[in-house]
Amino acid sequence: MKKDEKLEQLRKLMQERNFSAYIIPTDDFHSSEYVGSYFKAREYMSGFTGSAGTLVVLPDQAALWTDGRYFLQAAEQLKGSQITLMRSGQPGVFSIEEYLQKHLQEKAVVGFDGRTVTRRFVNLIREKTDEKQVTFDGREDLVGKVWEGRPALSKEPVWELDMRYAGKSRVDKIQEVRMEMQEKQADYLLLTALDEIAWLFNLRGNDIAYTPVFLSYLLLTKEQICLFAHEEIFTEELKGKLRQEGVAIKPYDAIEETVQNLSDGKKIWLDSGVVNYRLTESIPESVEILDQSSPVVLMKAVKNQTEMDNMRTAHVKDGVAVTRFIHWLKTNVGRETITEMSAAEKLESLRAQMEGYLEQSFGPIIAYGPHGAIVHYAATEQTNAAMKTESFCLADTGGHYKEGTTDVTRTIVLGTLTEEEKRDYTLVLRGNLALGAAKFLEGVSGQNLDILARQPLWEAGLDYNHGTGHGVGYILGVHEGPQRFHWRTAPGAKSVALKEGMIISDEPGLYLEGKFGVRLENLVLCRKKEKNEYGQFLYLEPLTMVPFDREAILPELMTRSELGWLNAYHKRVYETLAPLMEEEELIWLREMTAELTE
Amino acid sequence: MKKDEKLEQLRKLMQERNFSAYIIPTDDFHSSEYVGSYFKAREYMSGFTGSAGTLVVLPDQAALWTDGRYFLQAAEQLKGSQITLMRSGQPGVFSIEEYLQKHLQEKAVVGFDGRTVTRRFVNLIREKTDEKQVTFDGREDLVGKVWEGRPALSKEPVWELDMRYAGKSRVDKIQEVRMEMQEKQADYLLLTALDEIAWLFNLRGNDIAYTPVFLSYLLLTKEQICLFAHEEIFTEELKGKLRQEGVAIKPYDAIEETVQNLSDGKKIWLDSGVVNYRLTESIPESVEILDQSSPVVLMKAVKNQTEMDNMRTAHVKDGVAVTRFIHWLKTNVGRETITEMSAAEKLESLRAQMEGYLEQSFGPIIAYGPHGAIVHYAATEQTNAAMKTESFCLADTGGHYKEGTTDVTRTIVLGTLTEEEKRDYTLVLRGNLALGAAKFLEGVSGQNLDILARQPLWEAGLDYNHGTGHGVGYILGVHEGPQRFHWRTAPGAKSVALKEGMIISDEPGLYLEGKFGVRLENLVLCRKKEKNEYGQFLYLEPLTMVPFDREAILPELMTRSELGWLNAYHKRVYETLAPLMEEEELIWLREMTAELTE
Repeated sequence: MKKDEKLEQLRKLMQERNFSAYIIPTDDFHSSEYVGSYFKAREYMSGFTGSAGTLVVLPDQAALWTDGRYFLQAAEQLKGSQITLMRSGQPGVFSIEEYLQKHLQEKAVVGFDGRTVTRRFVNLIREKTDEKQVTFDGREDLVGKVWEGRPALSKEPVWELDMRYAGKSRVDKIQEVRMEMQEKQADYLLLTALDEIAWLFNLRGNDIAYTPVFLSYLLLTKEQICLFAHEEIFTEELKGKLRQEGVAIKPYDAIEETVQNLSDGKKIWLDSGVVNYRLTESIPESVEILDQSSPVVLMKAVKNQTEMDNMRTAHVKDGVAVTRFIHWLKTNVGRETITEMSAAEKLESLRAQMEGYLEQSFGPIIAYGPHGAIVHYAATEQTNAAMKTESFCLADTGGHYKEGTTDVTRTIVLGTLTEEEKRDYTLVLRGNLALGAAKFLEGVSGQNLDILARQPLWEAGLDYNHGTGHGVGYILGVHEGPQRFHWRTAPGAKSVALKEGMIISDEPGLYLEGKFGVRLENLVLCRKKEKNEYGQFLYLEPLTMVPFDREAILPELMTRSELGWLNAYHKRVYETLAPLMEEEELIWLREMTAELTE
Repeated sequence: MKKDEKLEQLRKLMQERNFSAYIIPTDDFHSSEYVGSYFKAREYMSGFTGSAGTLVVLPDQAALWTDGRYFLQAAEQLKGSQITLMRSGQPGVFSIEEYLQKHLQEKAVVGFDGRTVTRRFVNLIREKTDEKQVTFDGREDLVGKVWEGRPALSKEPVWELDMRYAGKSRVDKIQEVRMEMQEKQADYLLLTALDEIAWLFNLRGNDIAYTPVFLSYLLLTKEQICLFAHEEIFTEELKGKLRQEGVAIKPYDAIEETVQNLSDGKKIWLDSGVVNYRLTESIPESVEILDQSSPVVLMKAVKNQTEMDNMRTAHVKDGVAVTRFIHWLKTNVGRETITEMSAAEKLESLRAQMEGYLEQSFGPIIAYGPHGAIVHYAATEQTNAAMKTESFCLADTGGHYKEGTTDVTRTIVLGTLTEEEKRDYTLVLRGNLALGAAKFLEGVSGQNLDILARQPLWEAGLDYNHGTGHGVGYILGVHEGPQRFHWRTAPGAKSVALKEGMIISDEPGLYLEGKFGVRLENLVLCRKKEKNEYGQFLYLEPLTMVPFDREAILPELMTRSELGWLNAYHKRVYETLAPLMEEEELIWLREMTAELTE
């Protein structure tokens, strides 16, 4: 079926229901970053395959919003359709709310599958369209009625993290959550974020690419633990264990009815920016909503001792694989044909050789030359570049291991560099090192620290248009909050203080469109240093164990401190990896990590 | 009358009115930082003379809250009274709200002069005492009924800043404010902060120490400009001019009745954290309140070209006086008796020799040796220390000139220093220089930048327990918002982006109780640098022109960049001041500012 036919079928259904607009976002029912194939409704309807985008269909027109990462790709994929591309954030481009405000008539009804948006999202539109008395109907998944051959909902088996990997039992975790509920006098806690549920239960699944979680909802009370999930994903043994621990497994679909029947006068804790609209709307009016961030968000962000120890192990394994990859790439470029896609396969195969490797933690970014300037580049058959003995290969990849999750970026020198390339690499490296070397008082947030990574670039009148770092999950989403390194804050948003046990990426970059990109990313673990009359000091321990490329470094542009930090890091990398490397690699690694002086 | 007699008289009045508590803060009717002598009710009742403190009187007890600056002084001054000292912010010390929550009975009535507190302050107490159905009565100034020989309200003459000093006429300023009102659809704007009114009218007064403002309120509409002030403070000529420009002068006291009679259905813009409680409560229920920060706050924070140029001039004059003072102090210490108080007089006399000097911009802090560790030290006859040829003299002072306002801190070497003293001076200097050298993108706030000043100290496990910098008014309050350098943010508070034209202090410090203190403060002016694809870059131009004390600097602890910044600053100081210095001073200044190398 052609795109425009799909739209016409949808419009027929819209007309029958008197909908003036139908919104098709990129979300599953859980506000997940990546979604399973069942949920790719926007892709099915528009043909645009990017990971972010929202399609809005009106009776006589349709428009698709996506962000800067995808402007080129979306323009290409929408070609020949009647869908207009809306470049989010560009000057003069309407937001979805503004677009609806402009095009809707008085008392129009806007439809959507209420399970794929949040109340916060709907409220944004409501604010703009309230004067026209626009109403919303989230009861029906109309795309589902149009979609021929829709993939089934994923129901992959779950597996359990034993205590050696989890560090804390689910019974204890649930106990802690209940204490938070008690403090807020909440009778119910509704969790729908898949990584929160997986973390709380020490369970992992395989229903979403790159994120080992399983489709589920959780409703917790003082006495009950109701896990809504497909029963067939649990082994009999696990079911027995869960039952023994007081967990009642209910059908995945039963959450809605359960929520509709919550007891009068009770209080439910949920985050209306995460829980889907239909569920939030299903709560009886007699139940009070405590609309706050889930307590699990901060709990899982602060890794326990077992998680910290395992994360170090995972990073040593990953360091071996990535360092081996860099050695292979630098040795073989020019000798054999290496493309962005074949390099990604090579790196995946090297990771797969490491014991306990599970899967990639996100789609690999292996970007040669000018492609490195595209921040979220993903090679396709059409763009797949062959590498030459010049310029940089930017490799931003990561893996899940039984011991944890990695995310590392190195910008690899493939041949002779220009002075500009070296200068820019050195600037980004200085930022990475300065942030990594930060020592600071408890209470400091990523917003206070961000400038350390940007300062060398800002001094040169340069910048990168992305955050400096994100939290990282433990065999969960590679991007998780609440901590991050950033300098801008959205109005009303709060920057979270860093705490011992938080893991966060340190990844400044620089992107010269059409020329090259540099990004250097380590994961760092927040740790305690001395406590004195001034307070508790914290520092950042590097987890990533992969050398920087000395061929791109201009030591004369670095301060003595920066050289000291670099040499200390390289010494640590060498000592950590040396026992695990093959002979030829080891000789090379020794050279790569040898001390640099002014 | 003794303190306790005053309290008894007050309690009699409280009893007649059935008040269970009476609150006596340190504020005038305008939330001013300093207050005129008429308003020193808390000082009259308690005997405590510090600039910050709140007295709460109950039928059987009384307590006074003040902050860390005044713990010692307050303890001394409250000795022998029945008033308990409450050390704000210390562990286990109740806040005022908590104290009232604990001591009040059901349905108690709390009294205060509603003109000396804000609604925001009352709301804090209300939140804690709502369960007891406590109510508030701000109608009467009971201290006024007890106070024998109360000074009269100040009614000093006002004077006008001509365009050479103001840079923009009041007609134009009022026009801009009205445009902001229109945007917010506000019919009225109520301004009560004295510096906002003075700035808007290009008028200055003398009703408050250190702040050249005059007692007044302003009610602005689309058509009317009502200035509530004592008529006798204006010359006939000025009154004529104001009348011509559409300004109606009404009696200072008439504001309350005017506000009570605002028209139904209109919208009034005010800031309930600034406007006093009684005025806010006087607004009829039928008038909608837009509770937001006044538009004048940001307007006056961003200096216009004339103000910037004049501020530079003021700082050159101030630089001459302060540099001359440092030379005098270093030359004469040990040869003649110099005390903290006599040194302050000397500095004041040197400033007074400069053309256009008006007055001090705050109470001078001249603190010798261990006194330097007391952040807000003010020498009294009892503490007045004689200086010796050792340790530091910390001098934090400032002045108002016809061209602007200064605030500068130098820590002056009086003799041989210990290695610790030199190290600590150098650490603080490095922080001052690093922040001063910052280059950053528009949108950055003081919260992003603060770490630049703290980093050298944090690296050494040290810190200072105050903000790094505050905004500075133009011949107005030496402390003004909204911009500041700080890393902590109160919940709900927003850090304001720096803009070209903002002036802000850069003043890290280090305080070793019982030993010494170091603080180094420059005022800096935010300026535009290049604008490119990454955005508009900004930098900080130093306004303060006073050398740092090279006898305390350990160049070997500084980076090459830091030495470069120091040498560039010293070169600029020398070149700026040289034409204005006497021969002997000039020779000394040349040595003091000579290049330092590794």
